[in-house]
Order: sequence, then structure tokens, then C-alpha cells
Amino acid sequence: MPVILFAVPALWDEYHAPLTEALSQAGIAAHLVAYHEIKDQGGNIDPSQVDYILTAPTAPLVDYAPFTRAKLVQNLWAGVERITGNATLTQPLSRMADPGLTEGMVEWVVGHSLRHHLGLDRYTVNPDRIWDPTCPPLARERKVAMLGLGVLGLASARALKALNFNVTGWSRTPKDIKDFPCEHGEDGLRRALKGADIVVTLLPKTPETENVLNAETLALLAPGAAVLNPGRGPLIDDEALLYALDHGTLGHAALDVFRVEPLPKDHPFWAHPKVTVTPHVAADTRAATASVLIAENIRRGEAGESFLHLVDRVRGY
Amino acid sequence: MPVILFAVPALWDEYHAPLTEALSQAGIAAHLVAYHEIKDQGGNIDPSQVDYILTAPTAPLVDYAPFTRAKLVQNLWAGVERITGNATLTQPLSRMADPGLTEGMVEWVVGHSLRHHLGLDRYTVNPDRIWDPTCPPLARERKVAMLGLGVLGLASARALKALNFNVTGWSRTPKDIKDFPCEHGEDGLRRALKGADIVVTLLPKTPETENVLNAETLALLAPGAAVLNPGRGPLIDDEALLYALDHGTLGHAALDVFRVEPLPKDHPFWAHPKVTVTPHVAADTRAATASVLIAENIRRGEAGESFLHLVDRVRGY
Repeated sequence: MPVILFAVPALWDEYHAPLTEALSQAGIAAHLVAYHEIKDQGGNIDPSQVDYILTAPTAPLVDYAPFTRAKLVQNLWAGVERITGNATLTQPLSRMADPGLTEGMVEWVVGHSLRHHLGLDRYTVNPDRIWDPTCPPLARERKVAMLGLGVLGLASARALKALNFNVTGWSRTPKDIKDFPCEHGEDGLRRALKGADIVVTLLPKTPETENVLNAETLALLAPGAAVLNPGRGPLIDDEALLYALDHGTLGHAALDVFRVEPLPKDHPFWAHPKVTVTPHVAADTRAATASVLIAENIRRGEAGESFLHLVDRVRGY
Repeated sequence: MPVILFAVPALWDEYHAPLTEALSQAGIAAHLVAYHEIKDQGGNIDPSQVDYILTAPTAPLVDYAPFTRAKLVQNLWAGVERITGNATLTQPLSRMADPGLTEGMVEWVVGHSLRHHLGLDRYTVNPDRIWDPTCPPLARERKVAMLGLGVLGLASARALKALNFNVTGWSRTPKDIKDFPCEHGEDGLRRALKGADIVVTLLPKTPETENVLNAETLALLAPGAAVLNPGRGPLIDDEALLYALDHGTLGHAALDVFRVEPLPKDHPFWAHPKVTVTPHVAADTRAATASVLIAENIRRGEAGESFLHLVDRVRGY
């Protein structure tokens, strides 16, 4: 009977029931133990007995070395950059790709894209009661650059394409995607951003993606363009973004992630009329749907099959 | 060579070039004449020579009787209720079902649905810089009632369904739609509205649909529900709507159409904190895409084929 260590005390109450249910549904009889049950926390489970570790960057577990038998470390978050730098974590590592998380992300991206495209804010706050029956252009006339074509970027890009947005994808390495044109590499980034009305950043945070939106790349966008960042705070050079909003032709930024969270009360983003702050709500792992994925990965581990959503430790995502 | 009368002087400049181009693309050599060219306007085209009439409720043309040879009156608007009452209009009548109009409508409906679903307004205006990382539920947890399953309602419902909204359709008469459950008739209306988080009204305006949303039917919605009306102003009992917003549990109304347009400056909708007024921008006929449909209907007329989007004069739509 495999031993599964749940290493995030703050999420134990949320996950215990759905995870037990999902394991049962997957036909897995397992011993699910919480962090306080391992030996160095006063419990009686030896780390060398643990087969699977469910963790998160906020987990108190920092030394993975004693978990000599662990077949998989399953991250409960989509982002892994705060965990891949841990030198003791040598076990296979999977990221979370919860369908609920993906759905939430798609909804945030499409919602903010349509908000910008349709110019909804001018109707939401309209104290002068202005009746201007000028229709917006059609979505097919709006170029969207989707930076990042992982699970979240691809699902979001497909949803925008289904609404007829003129989508161009970009990823660091070439991807074989049929639904819309895709660029890659440095030159491709410039082609994807050139004239874009909306740019969405859904890249992993790596040294190569930091400040991918900067003074030079922001200048490529169409006048009045919107930047939507539900990915990672450091993907954007904050100073360059504010400069482009204040002195350039950038129209708006809707930001869900920040270098420091919660965003400090005195940060200029809060009061900026062209910035919308959303408090890291674009996508959340949902225990019920995430547990189904966790159970499937454990089933695979027990059956000797390959794990889903393994992180490439060299690339960092 | 068929004679096509363009009966809406205000739209002549907008339509002349794309219509000429679309007719040419359809291989139709036609004589396209403007309203001032017909005999009673001082021109030399006899009404009895006209084969097709392109018109709109705002057209100065009110007597269709002299157009004895006309095979089709093609309305340039989707709504026909202001023209079906014209007793002189005995020719076959087609409504506009411009793909650009449909796309614009879908974008408005999905945009306002996501705005309500995601609670975007609380981030758009957030002077207290509140960081509340509570995620909204998923779209799959939101029941949407789509009232009206014509071209616009069906396309909008499908787009919402593609984003996982829990869609229930309703139309007066039964429809065979596989994509989501559909109700019809009076009892079905109550089932569709019961517990809905979002209701969209895309019904034609007929005596049967007037005030379809009233005190009784609004009371069926879920607490905090949103009413989206991009259809026709009279579909909603305005007094009942305001009462439900002020004294009931209705959360919001986004209204694009009104009994009087432009909406009078002193109308209570303007200042109401729970009402968003959009100035009849949900969907506009686009000359380029509409002209393609017009040319196709004329091609059909010349080939003796049945016309697209014919209005049932008994039902009134």
C-alpha cells in the first residue's frame, strides 16, 4: 500500500476529503499521511517509507533528501519556479494541471480580453450619461499575441480563437499547433507582438522569460493595446510598463500577478487609471478537480506508467 | 438584369461599394439604384421595374404596393417588428442575419456574462485597494438561461456553452437543439429561469414576448443574478426590473436596448448603481458582411431558389 505524504498543512483540510474520494475512485488503496505524521515532525512515518509527496512552494518541507523511495513529487500549483531551485529535490517533479485551474484561467483571459475589446469600462462608469452608439470592431479585427503555449496558454488561445480573435501564439521553442499561427524565438517574439491589440503573458518564470515585456517589446504593440498578465509578475518590467502607459501609446494593463503579493498598498499600479489589479484570482487549483489528477498520477506510478505533467528540470518548467 | 432598389438613403454611402463588390463576387450583373432614383422621388425608375428592395425600418419608403414585381424585400436589420405591420408590404420579407452582426452579438453577450461571472467591476473600481484573493466559482457552476434561440441566441448560447457555462435555452416553440437542454412554452420558461445566475434576452419583439421578464419571472432567478438584454427593450418590464434591483435579490442588469432610444437623460437606469447602459452597440449590421448575404439572396432569387432568413408573417419574426 503506497504511502502518500501531504506536505502542505494549510491545504490539508481542503484536500483531505476530495483526495480520499479520488483515490478511491481510481481504485487505489493508499496510506494518506499529513506532514505532522512524519518522523522529524514527531510522527511515526519514516521519510524513507514515503512513495509520493504532494507539496507546494509554501510547504514547510524543504529537505527532500530523506525521501529516498519517493517516485514522484507532485506540486499542487501550476508554477514550479519556487521549487525547482531546491537542490535536495531530485525526485521526478510534476506540476499541477488541474482542469478547474485551466478553466478559471481561460475565463479570466477571455473576460479581460472582451472587456478591453468591447471597451466595457466606458459603460461601467459613465457619469455624464454619454450615448455613443459607435460599435466596437469585431474580434476578428483584433490581433492577440499569446505568449506561452503550455496548457494554460494554449487553452486560452483556443478560446479566444473560437471567438474569432486574430490569435498569434509564441513560445520559446517551436510548437506544432494547427489552430493558429505560432512564432518562436527572439525574432518570432517581435513578429507576434508587432501590431498586437492584446498581449497575454502565460509563460513560466525562468531567467529567459523575465521582463519579456519591456520598453522595447511594449513599443511593438498597436496604439491603445492592452497587456493582460495572469502568468507571473516578473514577466513584465514594471517600470517600463508604467512608462508605456504614461508616455507611450499603451492603453491598459490588467495584472493578476506581481513581484510582491499582496501588492503593497503604496504601489503605483493601485492608483493608476490605466491599470486593473486583480488579486491573484485568475486561476486557482480546485481541490476536487486537482485530486482527480493526483490520483491518476499515483495510479500511473503504481502501474509503472509515465507521469503526467513532468517538469523538465533543465528547462525549469 | 435585375433592378435592386436601395431604399435607405442614410446607409447608401456605407453600402454602395461593398454591395457592388459582393454582387460582382456572386456573379450577378444587376442595376443597383438608390431611393432618389425611383419615379416618385424625381428619378426615372418605375417602381414596377424593381426586382429587389433593400430597406430598413428607418427607410423613407412606406408604400410597398407599387413594387409589383419585387421578389423580395430584404431588411438590413435583424429586427423586423417595425416593418411587419406595414400592410402594403406583401412581398416576401427577409431579415438580416449578417455574420458580422452575429459575431458582435456573441462578443457582447459573452463579454457581459464573463464580466458578471468574474465580478470584474469590483476590480475596475477599487479605491480602497482591497486585495481579496477569493476566486470566483467556475463558469460550469453558473446557470445561464438563454431566452430566444434564433440565429443570435443560438450562437450566443453555444459560445457560452463552449466556455462551460451551464446553459439552458428557451424558445416559445420547441426547437431541436442538441448542444444544451432547451425548454419551451410557459412552464418551460419557469424551469429555464429557476435558479439562473444569468439570463439573456434575445427574443424577437412580439405581443407574446413583451415583458417576458416581469415581477413574477424575475423572482425565479438566483440571488445576485444578472439580466443581460441585448434583444429588444420591451422584453423587460422596466418598473419590475428596478423594483427587483432595489428591493429583491437581483444583482445587476446590463441593458443595450430600451423602449425609447437614446435612453432619456433622466431615465433611472442611467444613475442606478446596479444597471449598466450600453448604447445599442451589442450588434450592428456591418456593410461588408451584410452585402455578402444580400448578394446571396439575390442570387437565389435569380436562380429560383428559396430565400435565406425569410420572415414568417404570421408569427411576426
